[in-house]
Amino acid sequence: MSADTSTQNTDLQDFEAQFADQLELAPEAQDLLFREARTANTFTDEPVTDEQLRAVYDLVKWAPTSMNIQPLRIVLVRSPEARERLVAHMAPGNQPKTSSAPLVAVLAADNSFHDEMERTFPIRPAARDIFADDDFRGFTARLNATLQIAYFIIGVRAAGLAAGPMTGFDVDAVTAEFFPDGEHRALAVVNIGHPGENAWMDRLPRLAYDDVVTTA
Amino acid sequence: MSADTSTQNTDLQDFEAQFADQLELAPEAQDLLFREARTANTFTDEPVTDEQLRAVYDLVKWAPTSMNIQPLRIVLVRSPEARERLVAHMAPGNQPKTSSAPLVAVLAADNSFHDEMERTFPIRPAARDIFADDDFRGFTARLNATLQIAYFIIGVRAAGLAAGPMTGFDVDAVTAEFFPDGEHRALAVVNIGHPGENAWMDRLPRLAYDDVVTTA
Repeated sequence: MSADTSTQNTDLQDFEAQFADQLELAPEAQDLLFREARTANTFTDEPVTDEQLRAVYDLVKWAPTSMNIQPLRIVLVRSPEARERLVAHMAPGNQPKTSSAPLVAVLAADNSFHDEMERTFPIRPAARDIFADDDFRGFTARLNATLQIAYFIIGVRAAGLAAGPMTGFDVDAVTAEFFPDGEHRALAVVNIGHPGENAWMDRLPRLAYDDVVTTA
Repeated sequence: MSADTSTQNTDLQDFEAQFADQLELAPEAQDLLFREARTANTFTDEPVTDEQLRAVYDLVKWAPTSMNIQPLRIVLVRSPEARERLVAHMAPGNQPKTSSAPLVAVLAADNSFHDEMERTFPIRPAARDIFADDDFRGFTARLNATLQIAYFIIGVRAAGLAAGPMTGFDVDAVTAEFFPDGEHRALAVVNIGHPGENAWMDRLPRLAYDDVVTTA
């Protein structure tokens, strides 16, 4: 793919005129979740409540995972002491926002998801055995927990909150601090809150449809 | 976590009464994307157009990836010959629906995403060099392409279409067939269309908030 300038020319109004009538989702919902939602770098002091998080979870839990395995596990970092431990393991560029966000969540894959399959996949009692191999189970846990991280980001936006997802941190250290049982792996840290002053960088260009999608 | 019955007791009306007012997203949009959307196992003959796919892409391309790397690449399997090649590599349980869906997409991570960073991350000209290590680049490609697969699934639903995401296929074979350059890895295959007769299994139980979320 050549480095042309097509992505710089993407224009929201062109888009809306050309393809928006193909979507069933209402334009204001499109904006809330995708077009106007942005990764915030600063936040106001307004707290994020457990009720908001429950609403987010109880919405996004319905999105699909392989054989309904649902390996995502979340730690809400609420105590100042826990926040300090987390910030120490973030990449330097991520430390100021991780320090100042009203709520920070650590999202991880549970490699023992198969122990829940009696509950999560009751239609096939021996489903657990499919995941006996450690490597395959770990791969499947990471892939599906990552899908669920994306659903969670969309859910945070559905609550009218800004999400600041980050992958720049010491994975082993964060895993050891917040999921010390040896059965999990931290995949993302997400800052959550209402956007503060100068919350956003200029929007970065997106690849064009024809850069990403081909037909066979 | 003990195998209790809390997930079986999840009740949509309880949810809506208790937490729905915490969400800014309109209830009908919540239903369209999460609560009423389901993984379809059968489809009608109604085609899925390139215009619909462009609308989906031009919506979900705005969702976040690490340093805006956007490693997702998509092949739309439109020719009967390509469909046949794909079906041969699907798990037996996935073959009938992959054969009959009006459109099937193969979604992959592009391990050479860093070659696009001059375009995608122009604010840091040397960003490409961060990903010089093959293992780290591959890990980052898979993680972010997987986030984008989830955004894509939500986008398909936003178009009023049913998505049937699958991870049960021969990854190496599908990668070799549809991304033969050695720089990609297939991560998911998604059936897309309008739900047909008996499209759905009974809905499987979801883990409860308190099974998934803890506080530190």
